[in-house]
Amino acid sequence: MNGSSADSGAGAPPKRLSVQLLSPVTERVPRSDSKVTVVGVGQVGMACAFSLLSQNVTSDLALVDMVEDKLKGEMMDLQHGSTFLKNATVTASTDYAATAGSRICIVTAGARQKEGESRLELVQRNTDIFRAIIPQLVRHSPDTILLVVSNPVDVLTYVAWKLSGLPHHRVIGSGTNLDSSRFRFLLSQRLGLAPTSVHGWIIGEHGDTSGEDECHTLVVPVWSGVNVAGVRLRDIDPDIGSAADHEKWSEVHHQVVSSAYEIIRLKGYTSWAIGLSVSALCQSIIRNSHDVSAVSTLVRGHHGLDGEVFLSLPCILGGGGVEQIVRLRLTEEETDRLRQSAGTMAKVQEGLRL
Amino acid sequence: MNGSSADSGAGAPPKRLSVQLLSPVTERVPRSDSKVTVVGVGQVGMACAFSLLSQNVTSDLALVDMVEDKLKGEMMDLQHGSTFLKNATVTASTDYAATAGSRICIVTAGARQKEGESRLELVQRNTDIFRAIIPQLVRHSPDTILLVVSNPVDVLTYVAWKLSGLPHHRVIGSGTNLDSSRFRFLLSQRLGLAPTSVHGWIIGEHGDTSGEDECHTLVVPVWSGVNVAGVRLRDIDPDIGSAADHEKWSEVHHQVVSSAYEIIRLKGYTSWAIGLSVSALCQSIIRNSHDVSAVSTLVRGHHGLDGEVFLSLPCILGGGGVEQIVRLRLTEEETDRLRQSAGTMAKVQEGLRL
Amino acid sequence: MNGSSADSGAGAPPKRLSVQLLSPVTERVPRSDSKVTVVGVGQVGMACAFSLLSQNVTSDLALVDMVEDKLKGEMMDLQHGSTFLKNATVTASTDYAATAGSRICIVTAGARQKEGESRLELVQRNTDIFRAIIPQLVRHSPDTILLVVSNPVDVLTYVAWKLSGLPHHRVIGSGTNLDSSRFRFLLSQRLGLAPTSVHGWIIGEHGDTSGEDECHTLVVPVWSGVNVAGVRLRDIDPDIGSAADHEKWSEVHHQVVSSAYEIIRLKGYTSWAIGLSVSALCQSIIRNSHDVSAVSTLVRGHHGLDGEVFLSLPCILGGGGVEQIVRLRLTEEETDRLRQSAGTMAKVQEGLRL
Amino acid sequence: MNGSSADSGAGAPPKRLSVQLLSPVTERVPRSDSKVTVVGVGQVGMACAFSLLSQNVTSDLALVDMVEDKLKGEMMDLQHGSTFLKNATVTASTDYAATAGSRICIVTAGARQKEGESRLELVQRNTDIFRAIIPQLVRHSPDTILLVVSNPVDVLTYVAWKLSGLPHHRVIGSGTNLDSSRFRFLLSQRLGLAPTSVHGWIIGEHGDTSGEDECHTLVVPVWSGVNVAGVRLRDIDPDIGSAADHEKWSEVHHQVVSSAYEIIRLKGYTSWAIGLSVSALCQSIIRNSHDVSAVSTLVRGHHGLDGEVFLSLPCILGGGGVEQIVRLRLTEEETDRLRQSAGTMAKVQEGLRL
Repeated sequence: MNGSSADSGAGAPPKRLSVQLLSPVTERVPRSDSKVTVVGVGQVGMACAFSLLSQNVTSDLALVDMVEDKLKGEMMDLQHGSTFLKNATVTASTDYAATAGSRICIVTAGARQKEGESRLELVQRNTDIFRAIIPQLVRHSPDTILLVVSNPVDVLTYVAWKLSGLPHHRVIGSGTNLDSSRFRFLLSQRLGLAPTSVHGWIIGEHGDTSGEDECHTLVVPVWSGVNVAGVRLRDIDPDIGSAADHEKWSEVHHQVVSSAYEIIRLKGYTSWAIGLSVSALCQSIIRNSHDVSAVSTLVRGHHGLDGEVFLSLPCILGGGGVEQIVRLRLTEEETDRLRQSAGTMAKVQEGLRL
Repeated sequence: MNGSSADSGAGAPPKRLSVQLLSPVTERVPRSDSKVTVVGVGQVGMACAFSLLSQNVTSDLALVDMVEDKLKGEMMDLQHGSTFLKNATVTASTDYAATAGSRICIVTAGARQKEGESRLELVQRNTDIFRAIIPQLVRHSPDTILLVVSNPVDVLTYVAWKLSGLPHHRVIGSGTNLDSSRFRFLLSQRLGLAPTSVHGWIIGEHGDTSGEDECHTLVVPVWSGVNVAGVRLRDIDPDIGSAADHEKWSEVHHQVVSSAYEIIRLKGYTSWAIGLSVSALCQSIIRNSHDVSAVSTLVRGHHGLDGEVFLSLPCILGGGGVEQIVRLRLTEEETDRLRQSAGTMAKVQEGLRL
Repeated sequence: MNGSSADSGAGAPPKRLSVQLLSPVTERVPRSDSKVTVVGVGQVGMACAFSLLSQNVTSDLALVDMVEDKLKGEMMDLQHGSTFLKNATVTASTDYAATAGSRICIVTAGARQKEGESRLELVQRNTDIFRAIIPQLVRHSPDTILLVVSNPVDVLTYVAWKLSGLPHHRVIGSGTNLDSSRFRFLLSQRLGLAPTSVHGWIIGEHGDTSGEDECHTLVVPVWSGVNVAGVRLRDIDPDIGSAADHEKWSEVHHQVVSSAYEIIRLKGYTSWAIGLSVSALCQSIIRNSHDVSAVSTLVRGHHGLDGEVFLSLPCILGGGGVEQIVRLRLTEEETDRLRQSAGTMAKVQEGLRL
Repeated sequence: MNGSSADSGAGAPPKRLSVQLLSPVTERVPRSDSKVTVVGVGQVGMACAFSLLSQNVTSDLALVDMVEDKLKGEMMDLQHGSTFLKNATVTASTDYAATAGSRICIVTAGARQKEGESRLELVQRNTDIFRAIIPQLVRHSPDTILLVVSNPVDVLTYVAWKLSGLPHHRVIGSGTNLDSSRFRFLLSQRLGLAPTSVHGWIIGEHGDTSGEDECHTLVVPVWSGVNVAGVRLRDIDPDIGSAADHEKWSEVHHQVVSSAYEIIRLKGYTSWAIGLSVSALCQSIIRNSHDVSAVSTLVRGHHGLDGEVFLSLPCILGGGGVEQIVRLRLTEEETDRLRQSAGTMAKVQEGLRL
């Protein structure tokens, strides 16, 4: 009989049940190799966390937030579903020590724009928040990749890069990966086929970032690349995306830009699509898959840009972060828009106290 | 050359781009075989919807709610992620016609308990809401399976059954599937192994349903069945779960019961675990997998119960709904608790205007 | 009734254990909505079957073959893994009644080319085999979609169409879906990024079909559509794919064509990639996803072709089969090759006794 | 720089297309964290490899074998499916350097029993083969976990342990994980429910290992633990599994034991179920999930056994290998069988030249 409890003398304290059930062999390994930390458990952070778990991108998730109650509630709610999540481990803490050894740290924390607040003021407030986050993350996970989701994402990715001291290829903004997904969905609805079968890229500034009007020029759809099975829509309609286009495909661009505003107006926030978008980026990194996604990256040296500015371009992502950038063949107008974004951003960044 | 556009005369109106891109062969099939409808787009409904999509349980989801703005916002947010969801289709409408041909209809709509409101009053309010929902669902999907999630789930599953006119095996309450998952997670933490490797069942009333104190007796953990790799914990500690137990395993039961209250206190609502739990039930039905889950079902004829009452027992779920019920070997005390629940419920149901 | 065995009188026959364990509620539903039949349990058929199960494309698989021993062995081997396959159901029979209600029937059965056998002779032998298969499949699953994998796949898809009496959009050949996957993998290796990030299409005849030399002209890579993130390789190197190209990208085409021969030489047969390719096509149909795949379809009316011939073009697949065909913008040379294939095939088909 | 090719002087050699398409940012990370090596590309090894890839357990697979042609053919066949495998990387080499940095090394290589060959002779032959494999694996991946699949698996796991110099918890035999799956499937068929809902464990020697007659006693079904939803079948029928049982459930045990022989007779080898079984074990290790599986482990100190012998017991597997062993409550007869196995094995091992 293996159960030694039968032999325990009458006076001896009863052995713990778990000792009688399980015989130790070796210590648990403290962590897995695909640990992901999510900072900020608001709607965006939790949609990221839940996408990562339900799509099996990671089995080891750490949540960090300053609001202890909310944090604990979210942790418990996820943990109670772990029988349905292939036993994924979920931890949560206000202490960054819990994030140690993370392969990826996703930052969704940040303030929203107040009424009357200038863009610079907002960025400064979020920079101050990041100062309490980024160095802590890097301290506990020096080999991590930072994935910034907080808005305005492009400037804040720059801020995270500066605060982290990490090489630029390991600091990534979620950028226009979501805008590109919206673009493809909206195009697919017009054409009557699956979103994944319509290829199209949005580059430049992320659409949820800045004022609506401004965005129409800074969120750049690369019409020359839009295709289905390699057939370029521009070869069918040379005017596609321009003012001359009778079928007004440029409306799709406007819909992409207004999507975030529209959804925020309707339901109060956006969550699911950004969560899925971030989960997909994490998968590329964890699986080391070298596939192309539009993410915010240091654009110095690309398309004639020379500032220390982060904008979205199609990037090859792998285990080391941004491995390569696809050299798009942009029109003069498209390049101008990038330059304009870069200029505005550089100015904002100059005014920042890091 | 396939592109006939080149030949279109100068005066002719330009053909639509999509006609020049795609050549029709046959009409789209209107629906898939695994369509799922979710009624109610609150936190619970959306966690169900998102779990179903992100875990690939269905590729065809319809959302219904009365609040048009919120409904549209949630639909758009999911659709914008469809490139990351293997092209799943998401529709939404305030009109039940959109639910036609659903394999499963999940009902999460319902009112929450107001202060000072009696249980019967709450149930009556939700019954009134269900009267506007259930017959509509059945009219548009006469072969559907109804999966009730709204609380108090056991009584409302009875209500849905009565209002639907469906055979009882096709009206299911999400019941203690979630409580069982919580039970297994909490046991697993004490034992130091994976939740899916600790087997244990909670039967009776769903813990999020009624007052906290009451629940401690009506949410029934079947301690005799708790085991790891077939080793029953009761064989190691005959007192497990009872007052005599030195290691106080009954605390786990209390934690299960208080979980919902605790999470609601911390984050305002529960969502993720119930969403995953419902997604798992749908998977059993859609895959026709005949596996065992604890769901709320008509218990007449089981364990000596004879009323028209729904309580959770371990059920074999398949394409047709509840196919079989596992005959648990309960203690007198456990059976008493079921009987007590059944009695209370029968009384509430008597007072209802259906 | 729980525990009634205790009451059974001494003389009464003991009740069956399962009756005492389980209480019936309703009959099992005979079938799921995503049943897939695989005809032929050779290496290709089994790779298809295993891909479908391990990738959760179906939970209901029927195998048919004439060799009873092999068939039973394969069924048992799959069934023994069902705890690892989310309880998928696997049946097998030499009787086509077992295939009843299939959403998709995959045909992998067929003879291999004998030495000295002409192509027409091979096709005739396989036609004779198909005569014993196709009408049986359609009789038991009148709403099914036929997916032909046996080689030469394009002619045999025509044969299956004729023998089935089904509308042409519901008879599909696996075609160049695999060749396109090989093309993308080989291009990706040259470029140093992920295969799914290199877009390229092979159309025309499937490369495993005919003699190696012939294939170089009949398997058509559409170089004009090859792109990464919408950047056309032809825009970088106008000569790509042609004899003038210094970097000899046309070698990739040659490698695609010779792949099947090379693998057969090395390991005796091809299996994994064709299995995965077929599984992906089934997923598009079962999920009704409307995405584009290169499959063999009736090409009459496309690219100026007018015979009753099946060749691969990029098709939108959904629940109803081929829903639309993408109108490629081919060069004169590319269209010529299609025409040449179509001509040869029409001739072979003329000589066939159906 | 975008489009710099336009500037290249007439006499300059044309820049490589890939340089013009992609702009380098950082070096690729050489490897992922979940790399798995499979040694031996026979039917078993390839079923393991394909299960790992198609179930997304790893995205980084290395194949090793001595037969270069077969090895290359299998690699190419898998690679050609990589667009359907989320861009998994597959490498292959006869040189163990290709396995460097593997998280898990699966060993399926080995000789089959020749006619008239004694068990010791077979083991000795395979030991000689292992001598060329194990030290090489450990040299290139000193932190790896060895997962032995070759038969007779229990003795060969001991051999691998001795040759590796690794701590015993990092040397695991696939053991009775497959037998347990077969047991559960066969029980489920008798009971009419899903295999995953019938819990039962086979311990001791792996059934494909030794002579058929011998196996009936050495492959040990733990009838006391067999249950559905916590209801023990033994509580319904105290004779279950014994000679006195009228319903002859012991036949299920016999079927489990004869399964491998039966399948080998029918199709020539077993592959799918062992592949899936091994994939599940790898998933537990890579996801660090601490769930229970029956694997071959050093049993010294368990159930009164004291030799350096490997037999299957229910083990908690995690990132570090075998973390804990479940203390089964065995009958005297069951313990006797383990002792008998251990005795025979110790004798075989004594005769071995390592």
